[in-house]
Amino acid sequence: MDYMTPFTRRVNFDEGTIPDAVAVQERRLADLQGMFADAAAEAALLPTNPLIYRVYEATQNPAIPGQLRYSTTVIYPGTVGGEYFMTKGHYHAQGDRAELYLGLVGEGYLILQTPEGEINVQRMTPGAAAYVPPYWGHRTINVGKGNFAFFACYPADAGYDYGSIAQTGFASIVVERDGQPQVVSNPRFRK
Amino acid sequence: MDYMTPFTRRVNFDEGTIPDAVAVQERRLADLQGMFADAAAEAALLPTNPLIYRVYEATQNPAIPGQLRYSTTVIYPGTVGGEYFMTKGHYHAQGDRAELYLGLVGEGYLILQTPEGEINVQRMTPGAAAYVPPYWGHRTINVGKGNFAFFACYPADAGYDYGSIAQTGFASIVVERDGQPQVVSNPRFRK
Repeated sequence: MDYMTPFTRRVNFDEGTIPDAVAVQERRLADLQGMFADAAAEAALLPTNPLIYRVYEATQNPAIPGQLRYSTTVIYPGTVGGEYFMTKGHYHAQGDRAELYLGLVGEGYLILQTPEGEINVQRMTPGAAAYVPPYWGHRTINVGKGNFAFFACYPADAGYDYGSIAQTGFASIVVERDGQPQVVSNPRFRK
Repeated sequence: MDYMTPFTRRVNFDEGTIPDAVAVQERRLADLQGMFADAAAEAALLPTNPLIYRVYEATQNPAIPGQLRYSTTVIYPGTVGGEYFMTKGHYHAQGDRAELYLGLVGEGYLILQTPEGEINVQRMTPGAAAYVPPYWGHRTINVGKGNFAFFACYPADAGYDYGSIAQTGFASIVVERDGQPQVVSNPRFRK
């Protein structure tokens, strides 16, 4: 039998990065077009197309049952019309696959949504190990002044369904009110 | 459909513990009887039965495909006849299930073994994200002067096979030589 060779990737706990990542995904505002509630604010910012977040993939392990993948995500600080910088968010293509997040740097929110639109919010600071149970769509949001970074581990065969979120949005969004994060209804939610 | 509720457990990065763990497993020398290479040294220490390690289980999520579990392990410093304190080590009952380790505190070795007795060693310090691929048995070892602690994430249906390791041992052991860890053949390996 051919066995896969064990290996180690170093996670920089101070930066939330994986310096020897096999792939780094960059997401700019244009990649999230239509996802922020304030369409005018989004359009006004689009010409500068700010960097919203980076994903550092530690591996591209085979997408088969039993294998795991892991990564870190760094979300930069900022807002679009008062709504904090965030990830696109997704369901897993294989809906019964869970995911585990571990906060490393800064302060964020994990917002989760069932296919029926039920919302759950978890606060993530360094050391917070937040469980994304099967079937919940999930998005992370930087509600702090500096970078927000977290580690993620998930079944390698989970896959991504970005389309459902792009179509409906999340039922709730996180906005800055008097300098504090507040979870409010999303006026652009299309259930 | 009934969805599982998302939740967060806090990992103490300084101690490598999970204060609100759902279960804490304690392993003392008596639990590892017959696993250290120096049988006489082991027998001499047995009356004091020192605490070797603790496992902090964050969850007991259902043991079904797609679910994950996570935990931390703290291995205390010490040796038995020059062989460092270590975990019992196991294969997964469902052999194709992988596991991910993330070093939090101190310095350790992760020793891996295929069912045929091939050995691989990964060094673990804070930030080292070591991948245990499918089918590899795995044991962690504290080679430092203080506690060694790491975080683990694994498929909830991986299960444990402790019996195979208890029967054969690992082909290599880690001993202190001139104050430094050294990987050497296990004289008690029973292939």
